[in-house]
Amino acid sequence: MSIVDRAHADALDEADPLAALRGQFEPGDPDTIYLDGNSLGRLPLASRKRLHELIDEWGERLVAGWDDWLDVPRQVGDRLGSVALGAAPGQVLVCDSTTVNLYKLACAALDGLSPRGASVLVTDTGNFPTDRYVLEGLAAARGLRLRLVDGDPVHGPCASDVLADDVALVVLSHVGYRTGAVADVPAVTAACAAAGVPLLWDLSHSVGALPVSLDADSVQLAVGCTYKYLNAGPGAPAFLYVRRELQDRLRSPIQGWFGQHDQFAMHRPYDPCPDIRRFLTGTPPVLQLAGVASAVELIAEAGIDRIRAKNLALTSYAVQLYDSWLEPLVFRLGSPRDAARRGSHVTLQHPAAEQLVRELIVRHRVVGDFRGPDCIRFGLAAPYTRFVDVHDGFARLRALADS
Amino acid sequence: MSIVDRAHADALDEADPLAALRGQFEPGDPDTIYLDGNSLGRLPLASRKRLHELIDEWGERLVAGWDDWLDVPRQVGDRLGSVALGAAPGQVLVCDSTTVNLYKLACAALDGLSPRGASVLVTDTGNFPTDRYVLEGLAAARGLRLRLVDGDPVHGPCASDVLADDVALVVLSHVGYRTGAVADVPAVTAACAAAGVPLLWDLSHSVGALPVSLDADSVQLAVGCTYKYLNAGPGAPAFLYVRRELQDRLRSPIQGWFGQHDQFAMHRPYDPCPDIRRFLTGTPPVLQLAGVASAVELIAEAGIDRIRAKNLALTSYAVQLYDSWLEPLVFRLGSPRDAARRGSHVTLQHPAAEQLVRELIVRHRVVGDFRGPDCIRFGLAAPYTRFVDVHDGFARLRALADS
Repeated sequence: MSIVDRAHADALDEADPLAALRGQFEPGDPDTIYLDGNSLGRLPLASRKRLHELIDEWGERLVAGWDDWLDVPRQVGDRLGSVALGAAPGQVLVCDSTTVNLYKLACAALDGLSPRGASVLVTDTGNFPTDRYVLEGLAAARGLRLRLVDGDPVHGPCASDVLADDVALVVLSHVGYRTGAVADVPAVTAACAAAGVPLLWDLSHSVGALPVSLDADSVQLAVGCTYKYLNAGPGAPAFLYVRRELQDRLRSPIQGWFGQHDQFAMHRPYDPCPDIRRFLTGTPPVLQLAGVASAVELIAEAGIDRIRAKNLALTSYAVQLYDSWLEPLVFRLGSPRDAARRGSHVTLQHPAAEQLVRELIVRHRVVGDFRGPDCIRFGLAAPYTRFVDVHDGFARLRALADS
Repeated sequence: MSIVDRAHADALDEADPLAALRGQFEPGDPDTIYLDGNSLGRLPLASRKRLHELIDEWGERLVAGWDDWLDVPRQVGDRLGSVALGAAPGQVLVCDSTTVNLYKLACAALDGLSPRGASVLVTDTGNFPTDRYVLEGLAAARGLRLRLVDGDPVHGPCASDVLADDVALVVLSHVGYRTGAVADVPAVTAACAAAGVPLLWDLSHSVGALPVSLDADSVQLAVGCTYKYLNAGPGAPAFLYVRRELQDRLRSPIQGWFGQHDQFAMHRPYDPCPDIRRFLTGTPPVLQLAGVASAVELIAEAGIDRIRAKNLALTSYAVQLYDSWLEPLVFRLGSPRDAARRGSHVTLQHPAAEQLVRELIVRHRVVGDFRGPDCIRFGLAAPYTRFVDVHDGFARLRALADS
């Protein structure tokens, strides 16, 4: 049997220890092949149930519900930390958006961790736009310079790229949003630590798909989103991580009442919580937090190591299909060939990428996405993507490109 | 018939043109009298339906849903502006929390509107904690001073209090969270304008309860929350208003990808949207935005003028009951006696306020809230509070205080 036979994909699905998880998600249109979990994850059936319950809880308990809701950003943060981030309790909050959390932690690092007089903010040209924009804004507001370094598109950013003199802060993504390349978190973190330069990781494209070991890797600061591989729903709140021993030294630029020690005393000057809650701002989005809490339990049930094993197999299979079917048709592989350096999405480059993605979606019901100028991304989310989905999706792409 | 007779309250309810609206909310426990809509509004039945639909939409449409979701912060903002803020389209966004919006607009004002060299931030000692904390943080970060002025507890802040020399920014609440006193928005706004000092209004305790005329009153900047009198649900996103002619001159300190012109080009430097969207940050909370959209329609159906007429009647009735029953029992009226200067909640002061509130809730099923050191607040939300609720709630408080 050739690897391009559909029966091969079926066999892989039959051997998949996570196959049953797919049944725990809303199936959606059965004729559509959804390969965009890197953008928005599917709806877990348990989350629908939990969201309905929470809406009823609002209606029935009204303001008394806050007895249970007030501490949810920290409770869900602790659980997320344990399940997906390698973080002990008291270091993670689920709150605000990734953009706002990036801003808060970047400011906190510049005020509390940067070498005195350092004036350069560093990120990767390939980093996600919001990361670059936040840093641009901070550079302008504080009279600093932003240095965009060319990260290696295959191996991700490496330490030597980013640690020239005078660096005040480095912000990098664990997995690149375009290429899916995985950065070497321990190596880059150690290099920055040796240079005394604070480093903030964006985990948006890795959390829930790749093991992350924030505590063990001595990561100082991290943020990320929950609506991709964590399946927490459109616009669900993001998360932030601040290493415990740094919390005392760091302040949020946005001093809100949820970050205030003894919040309901209400009459004293601002006195930040003596713990991670000092990075909270305003009233937490209770309904959408319930979606995060519920979705994290699915990741816990699957186990992050099994998820990683399956997405390595899925992306490797996609690369094999690319080699057989697409490489001859002017496509190029935009993601690392080395599986260990690849996240959970595969990027193919093609001069007509934008048109191909549009036609794939509209005429062939294969949902990937386009990122300019020439990238087609397919997110292969282990909890619900089948090998046969990859097979059929790539077969339809091949037929389309060949026509 | 005396005004303290229950029959009088029944008669007022029978004559209430908004009485039928109560049936459009989740009734909750029929034995509980809920007088805390100033903290968390009730669940509109239409919102439960709409939230369920939106959850299904996520499950079925997945990433294609963003075709409709991307512009929701502006669409709901326009509708909220029209229904409750007196704001023409293109000036309101529903996004982030009140705290984050306060921070964004305060920074924008300091960078783009403040008199050169001015170094004092002004707010009212009675302003809501998060407003004070945000300003404290900005003062510390920018080397400015925060001046807390003693607003008149009955008439609210007035222009002469806040416009000493050297003022860079004034932040005030339309309705005071403790006293319910209504500030004179046109007068204070005109005084600040005459002095060339930017002014940012917090409408959290007025929006949805009192008519607001941002355009007509020449207000520059405003923020507010949606989970009180707008009934949008716990932690629903807040709103911000930036007067159209100022938008070009103002920048958000938090430059996120949702504020970027041509958002999905993704490769250029930051170039803020040429409109209100430049004040967006990250991915909007789509589910909870649906709760805002739905709740705003209930306000539209009721009409803000009818809502105001009814809450004036409700709070006036509460003051009458206070005069007859509570004034003799060591209570003091903490809200203005002049109805026109009173928002939609009534505050009673009592040395044992904290204990009284606790016992009222636990033993007598009357839900108000406590604000230190001595305030009991009763929020009388016109769309669902009955006169008989006020009667019975105050009767139970009287019995409790008398025992």
